[in-house]
Amino acid sequence: MSESSVPTSRTRVVREPERGVYDRDAVYRILDEGFICHVGFNLDGQPFVIPTSYGRSGDNLYIHGSAASRMLRNLDKGIPVCVTVTLLDGLVLARSIFNHSMNYRSVVVLGTANVVQDPGEKLEALHRISEHILPGRWAESRQPNERELKATFALRVPITEFSAKVRQGPPIDDEEDYDFRTWAGVIPLETTARPPVADERGNPEIPVPSYARSYSRRKV
Amino acid sequence: MSESSVPTSRTRVVREPERGVYDRDAVYRILDEGFICHVGFNLDGQPFVIPTSYGRSGDNLYIHGSAASRMLRNLDKGIPVCVTVTLLDGLVLARSIFNHSMNYRSVVVLGTANVVQDPGEKLEALHRISEHILPGRWAESRQPNERELKATFALRVPITEFSAKVRQGPPIDDEEDYDFRTWAGVIPLETTARPPVADERGNPEIPVPSYARSYSRRKV
Repeated sequence: MSESSVPTSRTRVVREPERGVYDRDAVYRILDEGFICHVGFNLDGQPFVIPTSYGRSGDNLYIHGSAASRMLRNLDKGIPVCVTVTLLDGLVLARSIFNHSMNYRSVVVLGTANVVQDPGEKLEALHRISEHILPGRWAESRQPNERELKATFALRVPITEFSAKVRQGPPIDDEEDYDFRTWAGVIPLETTARPPVADERGNPEIPVPSYARSYSRRKV
Repeated sequence: MSESSVPTSRTRVVREPERGVYDRDAVYRILDEGFICHVGFNLDGQPFVIPTSYGRSGDNLYIHGSAASRMLRNLDKGIPVCVTVTLLDGLVLARSIFNHSMNYRSVVVLGTANVVQDPGEKLEALHRISEHILPGRWAESRQPNERELKATFALRVPITEFSAKVRQGPPIDDEEDYDFRTWAGVIPLETTARPPVADERGNPEIPVPSYARSYSRRKV
């Protein structure tokens, strides 16, 4: 079931409007492949942009609050945020400098971030964030205690006003440039994992778990 | 010659202050390895965060303006921005969920973005951005013409108020958790290039240039 968001004047893609994506399922696929967002908020008229981890539960984004201590100062009633997730897929080499580009998929969610107060929802939010980054890890770790939960924040951002912008495929040059003698094409980029490095203080009898051996963000 | 910035109340790392880096050279190394920034700005009280490419020239950041059409609406006198660059280096798997983390290097630059008006500086800014992303490519491309230059914007952000936050290394667990029976360590992550894909409309006699064959952001 796919639902399209009606873009608002704030989420409609202004430049290169053909790259705008407003389909909720398509946006969620991007959100589910990424795991680092950049959260924007204002403090005394100054914008701040902070990278942090996140997870999704239905139509809510949960943001890990550790990176947001500045933001949390006056968050009693919620504050306006912009949550942006960007997946970089490649460098696009055209014949003309002007038509050089990147292949990417990015999502912008505008909304109000609220601190999750309910202990049950908070634990579930942290669980979701953990599973989002590394499925299976939560269950094999020492569970959080009261003190740790108190020192951690989770923020909830409802995914109501959003859009994505996507560019994929080969370079698009002006017709008269196709004879220009330079190589043209795409350098594909991806985030890859190298072999896991065991902690020197770790127990060598414990095998590397499968989720650490073959880590990948690609969804099947 | 390394110069330390005195962190302001706005750039001092509040949470995990031991991760704060204020050394200009160290910050520039991070800026020079990345090539996508997230620019934050306000419009009618709503924060926006937009990914775009950038380059550095001395103590100025140049941002490619194509992604910033919303921002450019009222940019006559310059607007406050936050430019954030994040390099993700790994997932850190601790014994306790609470001590899970990521290895990363991120830079925050607070400042005023101004549209580059001088045609010479604008061309140089675009050249810098291009060389920053793919050294050598500019010279082999069809150069920008008047019409294209008019359709492109470059923004200048002086690097005066900035800080970095860096986490590297193995998990740090509470002492009593080291006996907890789970694997602990780091999954190193990096942005890697796959083999270049030639444009189907390209001339097969033109070889893949070396800068496209072995693309890497790592500095020697």
